[in-house]
Amino acid sequence: MATWGERLAGVRGVMLDISGVLYDSGEGGGKPITGSVEAVARLQRSGLKVRFCTNESQKSRKHLVAELRRLGFDISEGEVTSPPPAACLILKKRGLRPHLLVHDEVRSEFAQIDTSNPNCVVIADAGDNFSYQNMNKAFQVLMGLENPVLISLGKGRYYKVTSGLMLDVGGYMKALEYACGVEAEVVGKPSPEFFQSALQEMGVEAHQAVMIGDDILFDVGGAQQCGMRALQVRTGKFRPSDEHHPKVKADGYVDNLSEAVDLLLQHVDK
Amino acid sequence: MATWGERLAGVRGVMLDISGVLYDSGEGGGKPITGSVEAVARLQRSGLKVRFCTNESQKSRKHLVAELRRLGFDISEGEVTSPPPAACLILKKRGLRPHLLVHDEVRSEFAQIDTSNPNCVVIADAGDNFSYQNMNKAFQVLMGLENPVLISLGKGRYYKVTSGLMLDVGGYMKALEYACGVEAEVVGKPSPEFFQSALQEMGVEAHQAVMIGDDILFDVGGAQQCGMRALQVRTGKFRPSDEHHPKVKADGYVDNLSEAVDLLLQHVDK
Repeated sequence: MATWGERLAGVRGVMLDISGVLYDSGEGGGKPITGSVEAVARLQRSGLKVRFCTNESQKSRKHLVAELRRLGFDISEGEVTSPPPAACLILKKRGLRPHLLVHDEVRSEFAQIDTSNPNCVVIADAGDNFSYQNMNKAFQVLMGLENPVLISLGKGRYYKVTSGLMLDVGGYMKALEYACGVEAEVVGKPSPEFFQSALQEMGVEAHQAVMIGDDILFDVGGAQQCGMRALQVRTGKFRPSDEHHPKVKADGYVDNLSEAVDLLLQHVDK
Repeated sequence: MATWGERLAGVRGVMLDISGVLYDSGEGGGKPITGSVEAVARLQRSGLKVRFCTNESQKSRKHLVAELRRLGFDISEGEVTSPPPAACLILKKRGLRPHLLVHDEVRSEFAQIDTSNPNCVVIADAGDNFSYQNMNKAFQVLMGLENPVLISLGKGRYYKVTSGLMLDVGGYMKALEYACGVEAEVVGKPSPEFFQSALQEMGVEAHQAVMIGDDILFDVGGAQQCGMRALQVRTGKFRPSDEHHPKVKADGYVDNLSEAVDLLLQHVDK
């Protein structure tokens, strides 16, 4: 196996997943993962470019950043790539008027979007808004369209909060895909377009960037598909079996973000 | 194309789907499809064996039959094959203790089943019980099992009620399959075991039986896979494109049950 120096050679930008890497979300705003507040600060002082790339679609970017700041992270909205703003760009570009099946809290992200007389459906991690009635409404809108368009903000299977595992938007996307006979367009990791936009915002090329995430498929696999390198942390939704995944092999496994930053600062540009 | 006499030769038993063939369900008990009450009565007087084979899993068999009787159909519980009793047989045989995600109304069908300390999940068309909280609970039960077993009563995409199309259990089955990485066992059409049990209860061989349904895949395709013949009615969830389905071709298309019975009585045993 290559040394860390070889594995991290030429890295100029670091892309960080948020949930499961910086903090575990949950009641009362969640809690930071040990060492992560300090690790982010060290990274920001290092001269490496840093960007946060999340599939969070239950909170607005503003709310998410406020929550992280309360936990001690020094992060601004402009440093975060998240699905709702990316979806708004797509909707505007294609003249799409969405029926929104999203969390109340994230609806504000779509304030500038025309939602009258919908010609597509946008779903996100809607939490308790995933009622039968709301799902049925989204289904009926899609079935009423000649060319049904379903846009899903992420396609995660589940995520971890302090109290346990929670169903994510992916299952609900699959439900609508099956019921309507359509294929969703995914805005979020592991979509290559989403990683590309985060790379652009960070201003580095794929081969100069490393992703650090807790999701072997969406963070690690997705980033590698784009030509980036990727490390998996053993926090968040990490499971020991991830280290023997049949299809995806990370460029390295680390106990947590703090260890990843130690390695980066020790080996990058040496 | 073969004549109706050739297509229906040797038929001794008729299997009828209920929703979309006998009646359209909906508010206030739904309403019978024109001519169907009379058609069922003529069939029952004909000497042909008759059995009702439904994927209805939102109502108990008792409730369903009471509803049909109110609409004028002379049907008894013993003539109906439906998923909940079939699922109970499977649960007992395999020592499975289900966590139930079902409509309140159908819970009584599982009264004799041990539901303590669940080692599987059973989902049915739960209607408004498909809340995020209930879906998440089913998800958590499955994720907590070493060998997760998910049993789905049917896998319908949607059904039609008098007020429009409604999401059926299939999408929710897909959601749990995706989130948990499991494959559901389906109890109901188009499962071959389900058709076989209905044939046994009717006492005829597959080649002697014809299915009449409104669902090109689950009624027509499912029955044909079992060696039965199948007619599709142009009522219920029928869509004109079904007559040019890329994979399934019915042995005949009829406007409604009444026309199907006309043809059967005219051509069978002649």
